[in-house]
Amino acid sequence: MRMVDIIAKKRDGGELSKEEIDYFITGYTEGDIPDYQVSSLLMAIFFNDMTEEERANLTMAMVKSGDEIDLSAIEGVKVDKHSTGGVGDTTTLVLAPLVAALDVPVAKMSGRGLGHTGGTIDKLEAVEGFHVEISEQEFTDLVNQNKVAVIGQSGNLTPADKKLYALRDVTATVNSIPLIASSIMSKKIAAGADAIVLDVKTGDGAFMKNEEDAIALAKAMVAIGNNVGRNTMAIISSMAEPLGRAIGNALEVKEAIDTLKGEGPEDLTALCLELGAQMAVLGGAAETLDDAKEKLQAVIDDGRALEKFKSFLKNQGGDSSVVDDVSRLPQAEYQFEVKADKSGYVEEIAAEEIGIASAMLGAGRQTKEDEIDLAVGLVLQKKVGDRVEEGDTIAVIHSNKEDVRDVEQKIVGNYKIGETQNRIELIKQVITE
Amino acid sequence: MRMVDIIAKKRDGGELSKEEIDYFITGYTEGDIPDYQVSSLLMAIFFNDMTEEERANLTMAMVKSGDEIDLSAIEGVKVDKHSTGGVGDTTTLVLAPLVAALDVPVAKMSGRGLGHTGGTIDKLEAVEGFHVEISEQEFTDLVNQNKVAVIGQSGNLTPADKKLYALRDVTATVNSIPLIASSIMSKKIAAGADAIVLDVKTGDGAFMKNEEDAIALAKAMVAIGNNVGRNTMAIISSMAEPLGRAIGNALEVKEAIDTLKGEGPEDLTALCLELGAQMAVLGGAAETLDDAKEKLQAVIDDGRALEKFKSFLKNQGGDSSVVDDVSRLPQAEYQFEVKADKSGYVEEIAAEEIGIASAMLGAGRQTKEDEIDLAVGLVLQKKVGDRVEEGDTIAVIHSNKEDVRDVEQKIVGNYKIGETQNRIELIKQVITE
Repeated sequence: MRMVDIIAKKRDGGELSKEEIDYFITGYTEGDIPDYQVSSLLMAIFFNDMTEEERANLTMAMVKSGDEIDLSAIEGVKVDKHSTGGVGDTTTLVLAPLVAALDVPVAKMSGRGLGHTGGTIDKLEAVEGFHVEISEQEFTDLVNQNKVAVIGQSGNLTPADKKLYALRDVTATVNSIPLIASSIMSKKIAAGADAIVLDVKTGDGAFMKNEEDAIALAKAMVAIGNNVGRNTMAIISSMAEPLGRAIGNALEVKEAIDTLKGEGPEDLTALCLELGAQMAVLGGAAETLDDAKEKLQAVIDDGRALEKFKSFLKNQGGDSSVVDDVSRLPQAEYQFEVKADKSGYVEEIAAEEIGIASAMLGAGRQTKEDEIDLAVGLVLQKKVGDRVEEGDTIAVIHSNKEDVRDVEQKIVGNYKIGETQNRIELIKQVITE
Repeated sequence: MRMVDIIAKKRDGGELSKEEIDYFITGYTEGDIPDYQVSSLLMAIFFNDMTEEERANLTMAMVKSGDEIDLSAIEGVKVDKHSTGGVGDTTTLVLAPLVAALDVPVAKMSGRGLGHTGGTIDKLEAVEGFHVEISEQEFTDLVNQNKVAVIGQSGNLTPADKKLYALRDVTATVNSIPLIASSIMSKKIAAGADAIVLDVKTGDGAFMKNEEDAIALAKAMVAIGNNVGRNTMAIISSMAEPLGRAIGNALEVKEAIDTLKGEGPEDLTALCLELGAQMAVLGGAAETLDDAKEKLQAVIDDGRALEKFKSFLKNQGGDSSVVDDVSRLPQAEYQFEVKADKSGYVEEIAAEEIGIASAMLGAGRQTKEDEIDLAVGLVLQKKVGDRVEEGDTIAVIHSNKEDVRDVEQKIVGNYKIGETQNRIELIKQVITE
C-alpha cells in the first residue's frame, strides 16, 4: 500500500477502505507517513468529503491510535455529553448532578478552558478544595457509589487526532465536517463513552457560525456514533448570545446552583433539560424525552439534584457548603455596573466578544500556561429581546482590577440596542438518530 | 502574510495575488515554508485551478527562483521547442538544423532521457566525438556563426520547480494543468527562450493520455507564454503509436539524416514541417505557416538542411561524415526480425510498451545513473494502417545481446493486428494563440 495512491483515490472521489484508513492513521501516528502527504490527503477530503463508512473507520482508527479508557467497572450505560464550545456554557456543571440524580452514571473526563470558552475543571476548582487529580480506581468507585465524578484528562488518548489537528490548523483544513466529526467522536469514544449526547452550538460565539453547517456536523457525529455502536443524539443550540447570564468560573458555579434549585436563567434551564433528557433516555432512566424531562424537573423540584451536586463536590474534596452559601465562593474585589447608552430593545449581544471581555478580566486563558482568576467575570442583566432604558444596568463586571474601561467599552460596543424586539430560538433542532 | 491564509484563499476559490504567489514560491525555495503547507495548497489548486494571471505569476515566480540564462548576445529571436515527451521522438534532431537553415537561431539547452522517452543529448552523442560540454561563450559564438548549437543543462535553473515537482510526485498533485503548464514554461523561460513552440503529445505513449487534456494543457501553456511576453504556439500531435520508425539513439540519428534528405518517415516529416513552420514564423523567417513550410521544404530539397546538420555536428566535435555514411554510426552486433503472427491490418501499436521494449535492449535509462547503449533499439517496419501477412517482418531489433525473446514477445504482444484499417490523425490541432 502506498500513501500516494490513497491520496489519489480520495482526490478522484473514491471511497477509502478500512485498510487504507488504518494504514494512513497508523503510519502517520508512528511517523512513517510524512506531514506533507497527510496535508494533501486532508485537502482532498475537504473537497471530496467522506462517506459514513469512511468517517466511522477514521474515527475508530484514531481511537485505536492510543490508549482507551476502560469504564467497564462502572455499572450502567456511561453517557457522555460534549459541547462544541461557547461562551458562558454552564451546562456540564448542571447536567452532571442532574442526570446522576436519575441514577444515570456520569463518569466525566474533562479539560480546561482556552480562548473565549471556559473549561469545566476550571469552573469546579472555584469551589475550594475541589480537585480532579484522583486515581482511576477512586473515579470508578465514586461513580458507582454516587453516580457522578469528574477526572482530569490523562493517558495518551487519540494521538493521531492530536497530530492531525495540529496539522489541520496550519494547512487550512480545519473546517471540514468529516474531519471535525471524527476528531470529536474519537475523543469521546477513547474516553470510554457507551453513549453520547452532543450540544452543537451555532451562531456568533460558536465554531459553526451558521446553522446549516451545525446541523451537518451534528448529523455526521450522530451517524458516526450509531455506526460504531455508541448510541448518539444531538441538540443544535444557539450561541448567538452567551448562554445564561454568568461568564466566569465562580460566577458560573453560582449560576449552576441557581439552576439546580430551579431558579436559573430560562435559556440555560431549557437547554439543560433538553440535553439531560437525551442523557436520561440513552442511559435507560426514561423511555421518552418527555418522560425524561418530567423526571428531571422532579429531581430539581424536590432538591435531589442539588443534594447530588453537594455530594459530588464533597467526594472530590470540595467545600460543599458553597451550595447553601454562595458567598463562600471566590469573590472579586470590585463590581462595576455597565449602563445602556440608549433606550430600546437588546437586538444582539456578540457572544464571542463578550467572552473575550471576560477573558480580559483574567477569567480565561490566552495560552495554556496562563493562570486564571476564578472570581472574575461578567453577569449579564439584559439579554436579547429585553427592553432597556438609557442608564439601565445591562451587565455587572466582577473584577480584581480597578480600571476596567476597556472591558466596559467592549461590552457596550457589543450590545446592539435598537427598535426591534428579537427573540433567539435557543433550541433549533433535536437530532435523535 | 501567512501561508495558511493563502491556502484558505485558494481552497475557497479565491484568486491569489502576485505578492501571495511570490511569497509562497520564495518562502518555499528558501525553506521557510514547509512541505506540508505547500502540498495542501497544491491540492487546493488541483481542485480550484488557477486563473491565467495566477498561472503567469506562478511561472515567473519559479523563473525568478533561480538562475536565468542570458541569450541576449545571440542575434535574432531565440525560439525554443519543447515536446511533452514520447517514444521515438526524433523531431529535435531534425528541427535544429532545419530551422537554422532558415537563419532562425536555435540555441538549445537539452537533457538526457529517462524511462521510456529518449533524450536529445543521448541521441547526438551517438555521433562520435560530439559533445555538449561547451562554455556559454562558445555556445553563443556557435549560434551567432552557424545559427545552431546544443548545450547541456547547467546552472541552478528553476529550483522552486524542482522542489515542487518532487513534492507533487508523492502527494498526488502531478496531474494538474496549471501546475504542469507553469512547470514546463518556467524551465523554457529560465533557459532564455524569446519564443516557444510546444509539441503536446497525446495518446498511449504520452503523459496526456486523452486529447481533451492535451488541448487544455497546450492552451494553458500558450496563454502563459503570451501573457509573460514570449510568443508561444503549440501543436497537439498523436503519440498513439511511436513517431517515425526508429527508436534508439544511433537509429534515430540515421532517421533524422533521412528526414533532412527528404527521405524520412511520413509522420516524422509532417510533424517536423509543422513545428518548424511555427518556429520559423516566431523567429521572423516567414510571414505565415504555409510560407514557412514552403521555405523549409526548399532547404530540404536543395541540401542546405543536411549541410547545416553536418556543420552543427562538426562544430561540437562530432564526426560529420556520418551524414554521408551512416554505417559510421554505432552498429549493434545482432539484428533480429520480428514477424507478424497473423495476417491483417496493424490496428494499434502500444507506444509506451514499445518504448519500454527498446529500453530493455539498453537504449534507455531506468534511473539517472544507468549507462545506455547508443547502438541498440528498434526499427518499426509496419505502422498503424499497414497491411501485413503472417510471417512478414513488423520490426527489426538491433541488439548487442543474443537472447531477445522477451523483447520480441513484448513487440508482438503490443502490435494489435485485426480487420480494421485504422488511420492515425497525427496532427490534431495547431494552436497559434
